[in-house]
Amino acid sequence: MVLWMIGLGLGDEGDISVKGLKAVQRSAYVYLEAYTSILPGLDRETLAAAYGVSEIIEADRELVESGCEEMLDRAKDNEVSFLVVGDPLCATTHTDLWLRARQKDIAVQVLHNASVMNAVASCGLQLYRFGETVSIPYWLDDWRPDSWYDKIMKNKKAGLHTLCLLDIKVKEQTVENLMRGRKIYEPPRFMTVKQALDQLCKVEEDRQEGVAPPDACCFGLARLGREDQVIRAGPVHKIAELDFGGPLHSLVICAEELHELEQEFVDFYA
Amino acid sequence: MVLWMIGLGLGDEGDISVKGLKAVQRSAYVYLEAYTSILPGLDRETLAAAYGVSEIIEADRELVESGCEEMLDRAKDNEVSFLVVGDPLCATTHTDLWLRARQKDIAVQVLHNASVMNAVASCGLQLYRFGETVSIPYWLDDWRPDSWYDKIMKNKKAGLHTLCLLDIKVKEQTVENLMRGRKIYEPPRFMTVKQALDQLCKVEEDRQEGVAPPDACCFGLARLGREDQVIRAGPVHKIAELDFGGPLHSLVICAEELHELEQEFVDFYA
Repeated sequence: MVLWMIGLGLGDEGDISVKGLKAVQRSAYVYLEAYTSILPGLDRETLAAAYGVSEIIEADRELVESGCEEMLDRAKDNEVSFLVVGDPLCATTHTDLWLRARQKDIAVQVLHNASVMNAVASCGLQLYRFGETVSIPYWLDDWRPDSWYDKIMKNKKAGLHTLCLLDIKVKEQTVENLMRGRKIYEPPRFMTVKQALDQLCKVEEDRQEGVAPPDACCFGLARLGREDQVIRAGPVHKIAELDFGGPLHSLVICAEELHELEQEFVDFYA
Repeated sequence: MVLWMIGLGLGDEGDISVKGLKAVQRSAYVYLEAYTSILPGLDRETLAAAYGVSEIIEADRELVESGCEEMLDRAKDNEVSFLVVGDPLCATTHTDLWLRARQKDIAVQVLHNASVMNAVASCGLQLYRFGETVSIPYWLDDWRPDSWYDKIMKNKKAGLHTLCLLDIKVKEQTVENLMRGRKIYEPPRFMTVKQALDQLCKVEEDRQEGVAPPDACCFGLARLGREDQVIRAGPVHKIAELDFGGPLHSLVICAEELHELEQEFVDFYA
C-alpha cells in the first residue's frame, strides 16, 4: 500500500499537518522514530491519545539502523505511518530508508514539516546566508574531534553564519553493557549551549584561529519552534553563562558582517 | 491580542498544521501573503472554503512592502492570522514584519512549516552539505547579474551543494504602468529549470570557470512537496532539455564529490 513518512515539526502534537493526521488515523501501524530527535515531554502514549490511535510503536535505534524490515514488509499491504520529529528527510538514516522502500517498490508519501534547518530563521539571521551545518559531538576523555571548528572557520571566511547542531545521546549503552549484550541504556543526554561553547572555547584557546574569540557574536537557541522557545544573542563569553533550560539546544555562530536587519535582531535578542 | 504567522508548507490546503488551522478558524482576520511565493492552483477562495472561514484577505506586494500597518493595528485587539506559503520566516520581509510587530508590543506566534530549504532533502543530497543559497533572477536586456555564479563557485570549492531559488514575478507592472500609476499587472512568470540552466550556461560560456560544464551533475526539482513533484538528476546539458511542467521549479548544483548514498539518489533520479 503505502509508507507515509510524516514530519511532526518542532513544537507539540498540534504541529502535525492536517493531511498527516488523517494518514496516521488511517494507518494500520504507526511508528515513532525515537532516536535521532525527540519532542521533549511528548511520549508515544500522549501522541497516540492526541491523534486518536490505539498504539504507536517505538522505532528505536536498533530498529531503524537494522533497516526497519518489519515496517517495510507491513507497508507492502497496509498503510503504515513513520513519524519523525522535524522534517522526515533531514537525517541521513531517513533518506536511506526512503530509498530502500522505493527500491522494494513500496509507495512512499513524504509529508514535510519544519525542522531546525529552517526554524532557525526565528533568530532573524537570513537563512540563505548560512553555510555548511555542523554537528558538535560530546567529547570523550580520549576523543576530542574538532573538525567542526574548521567548518565554522570556512563559513566565516565566506561571510556566512553557521548553524551548530548539538549532540543527543539517546538509548546509549556503556561499552561494558554493549560487550555483554545487555540492553541497559544510559539516561538520555542533550548537549547544552553552555557545553557546546565550552568545547568551542577550548579549541579556540588551543588553536587561536579566531573562529570564536570571546567577543564573537553568537545565538543560543533552546526549544526552537515551541511556545517556550528561548533565543539570546550576544558575545560568546556572555551567552556561555546563560541557562537556557531544557532541551533541545542549538547554537549559531554569526558571520562577522551582519546586515542591518540582522543587527536589529541581535540587539533585540541581546 | 495576537498575530499568528502561519506557514502553509509546500503542498496543498492539507499541509497547514492542526494548530495552525485552529488559529485560522479563531481569527477575526485572515491574510494570505501572495507575492513572495504561491501554492499553484490554490487561491484565496479555495483556502477559505477548506479552512472553513468566510474570507481571506490578499496581502499583496503593496500591502506587505508598505508595512502591513492595517494588519498590525488589527492584531492589537484581535486574533489575526497571516498565512505564508512554506515557512513564515524564510523571507526577509517576514522577519522584518515579525520584528516590527514585536517592537509595537504585539504578541506574535510563529507556526513553522516546511520550506524549500529543508524539503530539498527529497533529492537525497545531505542537507548539512548545502552552502549558501542563491537566487537566480530573470535577466533583462540590459541587466544580466551573475553574482550567483560566484557563489555557486564558492560552494563548489568548499565541497558543498548549492540550492538555487528561481525567480518569481507576481503582480509586476511595466515601467510605463508604474510611471503612470496604473495598477495594471503583468501575468505572473515563474522561472523554469531550463531557463535557469540556460542563463547558467551562458555565464559559463563567458567565464569558463568550471562551475557548470555540460557534464556537471545537477538536480532539477519541480513542485517540491506536492504529490506531483518531479525530481530529475543528471548532467546539466541533459537536465536543460527536460520539461518539468508547471511551477514552482528549483535547481541544485551538486558538489563535485558525492557521498555513496547521495550517488545512489543521483542514479535513482537519473
